[in-house]
Amino acid sequence: MGITEQLVKFSTMEVAEEAAAMMRLSLFDWAACGSMGAAETEFAAFRQAQIIEDGPAHVFGGGELGAAQAALVNGTLSHALDYDDTHFAHIGHPSVAVLPAVMALAETLDTPLSDAIDAATIGVEASIMVGVWLGRDHYQIGYHQTATSGAFGATLAAARLLGLDKGQTRNALGLCASMASGVKAQFGTMAKPLNAGLAARTGVEAALWAQAGMTAAEDGLAGPLGFGATHHGEAAEVKLPRKEWQINTISHKFHACCHGLHAMLEALGGANVEAERIDAIKIRTHPRWMSVCNIAAPKTGLEVKFSYGHTAAMTLLGHATGAIASYTDEIARDKDIIALREKIEVVEDESLSETQSLITLTLETGEVRRLRHDLMTPMTLETRSEKLLAKVRALLGDARAVSLWQAVIGSDLDAVTDCFTAAE
Amino acid sequence: MGITEQLVKFSTMEVAEEAAAMMRLSLFDWAACGSMGAAETEFAAFRQAQIIEDGPAHVFGGGELGAAQAALVNGTLSHALDYDDTHFAHIGHPSVAVLPAVMALAETLDTPLSDAIDAATIGVEASIMVGVWLGRDHYQIGYHQTATSGAFGATLAAARLLGLDKGQTRNALGLCASMASGVKAQFGTMAKPLNAGLAARTGVEAALWAQAGMTAAEDGLAGPLGFGATHHGEAAEVKLPRKEWQINTISHKFHACCHGLHAMLEALGGANVEAERIDAIKIRTHPRWMSVCNIAAPKTGLEVKFSYGHTAAMTLLGHATGAIASYTDEIARDKDIIALREKIEVVEDESLSETQSLITLTLETGEVRRLRHDLMTPMTLETRSEKLLAKVRALLGDARAVSLWQAVIGSDLDAVTDCFTAAE
Repeated sequence: MGITEQLVKFSTMEVAEEAAAMMRLSLFDWAACGSMGAAETEFAAFRQAQIIEDGPAHVFGGGELGAAQAALVNGTLSHALDYDDTHFAHIGHPSVAVLPAVMALAETLDTPLSDAIDAATIGVEASIMVGVWLGRDHYQIGYHQTATSGAFGATLAAARLLGLDKGQTRNALGLCASMASGVKAQFGTMAKPLNAGLAARTGVEAALWAQAGMTAAEDGLAGPLGFGATHHGEAAEVKLPRKEWQINTISHKFHACCHGLHAMLEALGGANVEAERIDAIKIRTHPRWMSVCNIAAPKTGLEVKFSYGHTAAMTLLGHATGAIASYTDEIARDKDIIALREKIEVVEDESLSETQSLITLTLETGEVRRLRHDLMTPMTLETRSEKLLAKVRALLGDARAVSLWQAVIGSDLDAVTDCFTAAE
Repeated sequence: MGITEQLVKFSTMEVAEEAAAMMRLSLFDWAACGSMGAAETEFAAFRQAQIIEDGPAHVFGGGELGAAQAALVNGTLSHALDYDDTHFAHIGHPSVAVLPAVMALAETLDTPLSDAIDAATIGVEASIMVGVWLGRDHYQIGYHQTATSGAFGATLAAARLLGLDKGQTRNALGLCASMASGVKAQFGTMAKPLNAGLAARTGVEAALWAQAGMTAAEDGLAGPLGFGATHHGEAAEVKLPRKEWQINTISHKFHACCHGLHAMLEALGGANVEAERIDAIKIRTHPRWMSVCNIAAPKTGLEVKFSYGHTAAMTLLGHATGAIASYTDEIARDKDIIALREKIEVVEDESLSETQSLITLTLETGEVRRLRHDLMTPMTLETRSEKLLAKVRALLGDARAVSLWQAVIGSDLDAVTDCFTAAE
């Protein structure tokens, strides 16, 4: 019987009398220790900091909480769909750990949004730096970089927002070294997004607690018996960014389906051809994806998310592949889509990278068009803005997307958090 | 420049314009993701569970909080003095992680104290079991067992109190696998007791969140990419307790000084001789302790805590070595103590174990008495009760010690938590 089975079984076992008697003594002993501990004045500020009631920070779905709780809830909820940004240098979702911390603290402190964005930038960049420092081993062995390096990024962003001095900032990072956590065993469960929420809360708490006078290891991240030493860190060399910041190569998802389909969908986005004029489509992709997202005849909305043929036909017929709501069981049965899908052939091509797709469109006139896309292609901020606006329109509807866009562009913190209400 | 220095420096650097612009887009993107995530009904109960205001759980020093916050604060405060119980099987302080969780939840649920004690027993035993399963490697490499195995123990205790079903309990342990943390780099800082508080909070949260429907890895502790696999776990064989529970061999501290002095102080406790009748004292101890706690002429209260001669003289002259308040700078200068101390010789003896002390007392009459003590000697519950009552009297004073004792013995939860006010 494995340890977990044993523990589950144990949780309802009857307790031995002598054991319970000992426990009773320990309770007595422990309660006395606690009473004494409460007289230690160095802990007073930290203790006081826990006493939160209603807070100033908006929570997704409505309501307001204290900063730490809001960061936890918002980090979790905003990663629930796995639709947020990614960075491939360390392989993690940086914003979802850093922004919930920053926004919650910014509301608490009444920080101008532009300062909050600066802090978040520092935090995201720092999380990528820490992630690269921890290295691929750390990720491969099973740590969830979004959460582990993310917590350090969130901490640094929060430290900045709070204006901590160097000693306090060092303490905040030290505290983070005891709190950063999250394993990849959680992938596929609700605990995966929770990892992000926990990282965000850690950032807020580590910084607030350091401000409240909590001390920690001098170098909790890189020192002896610290986070890197214990968590399979490689201690890879990293440098502070100069001209090229890592955040510049962040990836945003524009389609609410498997990442393996994105290069193809981007390529088809440039087709500009009416579907009825198409005679045949040949899609070339890296062999890796063939077993991942090439379901020939999907039966459900979920299966559609893993189908080259179906999503290709969807986008050519004008369906929004960026909208969560598009991936329904009904669309899996849509006759027009299925008819177009029949004209599509998907073939593997080893000459392509995993981020590339090559498409040959043959029109009824006999004309042949070639389309290609590489997800690594640099994108201007303008193009990215347009694509993100389209994505958010598909997610939230025009009116809400525009309100949110204007709030962000207008640097209006309150207007941004007013948009935290749940999508309909 | 090390990573931490770089991060500290980075926290106040100016942000590149392009980077901030990208961040702005990510904020826009992320806020939309969060709004969508809030519509995921499976997270609704978890979200609701965060919305706490004033809670029902008493906090050391006064005030009431929600269960999770109370567990965090109480776990931290009750480990601040490092005077709580220890178990040497895995090397950790089990009660300080488990009891804060159990007591806070018990108050929340209005659980009878006896049931709460049962749950705590399960939790403490489980934490030792998990600690042994994680093994010595886990501890040696730098994880703080009090916090890591303690979190699992606290989780199991909380699951029991809440009456979680098997699936929920498994989820609670799975959630714990993403939250259990704490490194030994924190030793000597305020983050050491914080580790205990975090473990206690993890127990409360993991169980409440599992009850609220959060899912997690099927086997987050022992499965692939789980806690053991990532955290240098040995996966040592462990068995459920039958007759002999590990908690039965828990150690309580009876003297508010270095552990290396305890065997000697226990041995002298049986001397029953007036100090003025003593001509010479020879103390034999394991060589290991000679460099740890043999300060010949301590100058401060702190140094007294590491002095064989001074504490031996103190106890023979009737000073309470169990009282925190005894270890003052004044007592380091006490002439009677110093005079008696001059008659004491401390020698190392390799034939003794680390938990043993052997003392030869020569009286002015020429009579020689031999005293010895081994901390591993089994102790009856009655003796332990007496010694703990004496300890707590020394800590809290007679009246409060008796009130707390009666509350615990009388199984009166409210009366116990009424004693959580700060010591004077």
